Amino acid sequence: MAMTTVNNGVNVQALLDAREVLKGAPEAAKFTWRASCKWQNGTHSKTKVQGFFGLGQEQQHKTETSFEADHPEIFASEDLGITPVEYMLVGLASCLTAGVAAVAQNRGIQLRSVESKVEGKMDIRGILGIDSEVRNGYDDIKVTFHIDADASKKDIEALVAQSQKRSAVYDVITNPVNVTVQVV
Amino acid sequence: MAMTTVNNGVNVQALLDAREVLKGAPEAAKFTWRASCKWQNGTHSKTKVQGFFGLGQEQQHKTETSFEADHPEIFASEDLGITPVEYMLVGLASCLTAGVAAVAQNRGIQLRSVESKVEGKMDIRGILGIDSEVRNGYDDIKVTFHIDADASKKDIEALVAQSQKRSAVYDVITNPVNVTVQVV
Repeated sequence: MAMTTVNNGVNVQALLDAREVLKGAPEAAKFTWRASCKWQNGTHSKTKVQGFFGLGQEQQHKTETSFEADHPEIFASEDLGITPVEYMLVGLASCLTAGVAAVAQNRGIQLRSVESKVEGKMDIRGILGIDSEVRNGYDDIKVTFHIDADASKKDIEALVAQSQKRSAVYDVITNPVNVTVQVV
Repeated sequence: MAMTTVNNGVNVQALLDAREVLKGAPEAAKFTWRASCKWQNGTHSKTKVQGFFGLGQEQQHKTETSFEADHPEIFASEDLGITPVEYMLVGLASCLTAGVAAVAQNRGIQLRSVESKVEGKMDIRGILGIDSEVRNGYDDIKVTFHIDADASKKDIEALVAQSQKRSAVYDVITNPVNVTVQVV
């Protein structure tokens, strides 16, 4: 059976075991992800990520990671980091890619390479307040995968479709999420 | 007049000038932001960001930036980067923060510090496929700002509200965006 020799580096058995455990323990499935942002100067900020809550207790990433965001020089900023909207594309690409690897492992498909390009179109008349008919965010995002794997084109397309179906970031971008902003 | 001595590091005049120019040149306001992702192993990927299109031509960030994403050890992964869903929080916090600085500059309010915490709640029974009634993405995101500025609580709240109103990432998360995924 091909499945036993396939190794995409994903521990699918652990995920299947976790699924069985969480079926009987829905409280443990409630996660809270967090980030802390500090304004630096102008449009430049630094956001740190380390702790989160899940499986009923506080958890930590192995290291704290810090992310710089800024606006580019053509917006009269210093370009000391990528823009906030580009972080959305990083999240989308990485979520779908992790999903492709996990689904491939589960289906016994050996991956050789998975590359993707993400393009998000935005009309900046929205954020500049020029035209109230133009939205602030992306109008349209396109993700294009190039996958080299031990499978037919049809099976590779099915992998990507299943990853999309289970992707948290794809859901966040394509469907509304309730966001509350407060000042304390 | 207080406005002349306020310096939050945002060149508001340049943005107001850009607004005037783009009113008469809507084609130049059409931007495309991009990212390129490469699967590493397991759920680990690297996404690079550098080029984008805007003001009618190809543009480049000063440097190419690379972002690691992975799943944490409690999901039997190696935690070689933050999770894709945490990138969403980085984008949201940094977008609202840049907006606060820009709006404050425009309103003549001197900022001393702007810090925020973002928390996103997610029930992972969605992504694990345990319960089809549970969504894959965030149920709810809360952003909490602590702002020290030369302004009343009411004026600070109005700053944040205006930033939210013009935030591209807030729009992407709270409203649906069309996403197309293809394999070539």
